Amino acid sequence: MDRCNRLAEITDTLKGISRLYLSPAYMEGLKQVEAWMQEAGMETWVDPVGNQWGRYACPNPDAPTLILGSHLDTVPNAGKFDGILGVMLAIEVVDQVVKAGLELPFHLEVVGFGDEEGVRFEASMLGSRAVVGQWDDDTLELTDAQGISLSAALEACGLNPQDYRAASRKGDNLLGFWEIHMEQGPVLEAENLPVGVVSAIAGARRFKVMIEGEPGHAGTVPMSLRQDALAAASEVNLMIEKSAQIHQLVATVGHIKVYPNAVNVIPGMVEFTVDIRSEDDALREKVMNLIFLASEAICMQRDVDIYWKEYHLAPAKNCHPEFRQLFEQSIAKLKNHVRSLASGAGHDAMTMAEITDIAMLFVRCKDGISHHPDEDVTCEDAEAALQTTLLALKKLAAHYDAGLETLETP
Amino acid sequence: MDRCNRLAEITDTLKGISRLYLSPAYMEGLKQVEAWMQEAGMETWVDPVGNQWGRYACPNPDAPTLILGSHLDTVPNAGKFDGILGVMLAIEVVDQVVKAGLELPFHLEVVGFGDEEGVRFEASMLGSRAVVGQWDDDTLELTDAQGISLSAALEACGLNPQDYRAASRKGDNLLGFWEIHMEQGPVLEAENLPVGVVSAIAGARRFKVMIEGEPGHAGTVPMSLRQDALAAASEVNLMIEKSAQIHQLVATVGHIKVYPNAVNVIPGMVEFTVDIRSEDDALREKVMNLIFLASEAICMQRDVDIYWKEYHLAPAKNCHPEFRQLFEQSIAKLKNHVRSLASGAGHDAMTMAEITDIAMLFVRCKDGISHHPDEDVTCEDAEAALQTTLLALKKLAAHYDAGLETLETP
Repeated sequence: MDRCNRLAEITDTLKGISRLYLSPAYMEGLKQVEAWMQEAGMETWVDPVGNQWGRYACPNPDAPTLILGSHLDTVPNAGKFDGILGVMLAIEVVDQVVKAGLELPFHLEVVGFGDEEGVRFEASMLGSRAVVGQWDDDTLELTDAQGISLSAALEACGLNPQDYRAASRKGDNLLGFWEIHMEQGPVLEAENLPVGVVSAIAGARRFKVMIEGEPGHAGTVPMSLRQDALAAASEVNLMIEKSAQIHQLVATVGHIKVYPNAVNVIPGMVEFTVDIRSEDDALREKVMNLIFLASEAICMQRDVDIYWKEYHLAPAKNCHPEFRQLFEQSIAKLKNHVRSLASGAGHDAMTMAEITDIAMLFVRCKDGISHHPDEDVTCEDAEAALQTTLLALKKLAAHYDAGLETLETP
Repeated sequence: MDRCNRLAEITDTLKGISRLYLSPAYMEGLKQVEAWMQEAGMETWVDPVGNQWGRYACPNPDAPTLILGSHLDTVPNAGKFDGILGVMLAIEVVDQVVKAGLELPFHLEVVGFGDEEGVRFEASMLGSRAVVGQWDDDTLELTDAQGISLSAALEACGLNPQDYRAASRKGDNLLGFWEIHMEQGPVLEAENLPVGVVSAIAGARRFKVMIEGEPGHAGTVPMSLRQDALAAASEVNLMIEKSAQIHQLVATVGHIKVYPNAVNVIPGMVEFTVDIRSEDDALREKVMNLIFLASEAICMQRDVDIYWKEYHLAPAKNCHPEFRQLFEQSIAKLKNHVRSLASGAGHDAMTMAEITDIAMLFVRCKDGISHHPDEDVTCEDAEAALQTTLLALKKLAAHYDAGLETLETP
């Protein structure tokens, strides 16, 4: 927790916390994190795209590697814990392993990813995407709001952009990726639990929707002759809300724009967005089909037209069942109630699932707030996350030799 | 109709029609209108605020005056008929009266008001408001988008701003104000009628409404823990629509603004407007009380707060019953179906009601379109409006001598 506070002091802005990917404060933060990794007994390096790595090797060079970590970048005017907490706890885990003189049957690495938030360049999770080998030469051409290319930003940090392929860990002998992260939601707090095991990272679809009615004079067109696009959108929004409630997933109309948007004109056109997420891809598809159908009926009834355009699709990523079991058993052993929950937000683990098995542990946060200075996690909950992860790690080590399939009967 | 087309050629813009109050094209238009008034046999003058007047006096100097007219200013990129048609028809009425050698027991005046649309200065109906004595010294300080004061604009047209009090006709011996205007709505077209008699100009209330919920992550906050301000606003909008349908008035949510308005954030706050109109003030009050109550319940159910702020209130103005009867009898005599309808839009007659009795005749327009180049009225419908008004005028003259109360038995 002290280290989260210390990192919060390293910022690009005079007030508040801001460490965008490859910014001066971001690079200064890496030096601090690297020092902590070394204190914990790790060898360290910064990879070609600016991710910070630490390694605690086991005696057997051919053993696989378990990676622990999260991200070190922040949104503008951020809190202290989103991403950061997961990297600090990972370092703490290694520190405890080293201090206890534990010999593990696998290498242990900690990663602090450079970009998860996607605030600076028009892409998110650039750090983990380099690690799973998803960068190409076009990636280097991405530019920030000042017109600085990713390539130039890397060079300015003393990194060689052309080396990005060397950041990839695809094909390496990896055991898994574990990420500890604040929940960024209200569920654990509502149920009074310090930690929760992530079952899956929800898949998401996003749509731009347009409803075309007829504009008209708010005083002269009787209700019966109206084709009010906003009234239609309101009905569609409530139908989406109800569908999500019934089928137990989340769906949100977060953005809306009305034309011409004047007090005395009946809305002729409305554009809005729909974001729908579920850990169950099949359920999400079923509910979307229902929503398409119901919105069509609503708009036919009102004699307006509706157009749906999908612009984002990400399938759900399941956390590895045996990893989940390790965490669940550790939570139970520590006398906490075992709670599984899906992650509605995307995380680095989602990307890392491309090249290895993943696990995530959520830590309770205050009022579900994130991306805001009020973001908060208690010391006690961070400690619970640390102990849970340490225990899961020891169980993994014990069962690794015996074969992971023995996990069923701990 | 030729004159409407001719006036449309006098515009401040290279393309489209635009004659804002006191603009060069507006003043050039007055010269043309003045010439037509003189051709029709009227003496003419421009009053101190730029309204164009014409007068056909009757032999008895102590007789009262019936004023016919509408407005000569336009919105930017306007149609040819809004306001203009009423002035052109008024001139035509006088022309026919003069040609027929009719001697009326009252003076006949035609007015073309300078500002009804309220586009140039931050106030509408400035022309008729001067005529009813509603200007004061502050009015002269109103400025347009270029920072030009109303005072300076009047001076630039060769008018003396300090003379504005002389434009007032308050206290004059007025018989009434009759305004012919295109409907600006779809009712007459839907019922296939050339003209309709206005029963009243609807009163209006306008509100700014704010709903405060809680912003949240669209992926991590379960539906049951949300306080979605836009979902609440959607439910309020549909309740308003339904209330208006049931109680047969019009209510519109035309403007909406969502915060923070991002695809992946649950709306934390929504601002929107409500415009509600009815010719029946008591009914409108009753429905508003219902809407207040129902919106309170909706928001309590959803655990969000709602705030209403009224920023506009205009009571309904009834058209004079005996004038209405004159027009209804004339329509019947011309073998058209008699249709009374309220005006949902505001008109100069609304202001003129402050100093005299009013009447309005609506003329069918195409697709309810106004404030747009596609605005259209047919020659046949304009002719029907002319004949109806002429007949009503003759009836008024006949009954004026006999006493208006004899109108019951024509």
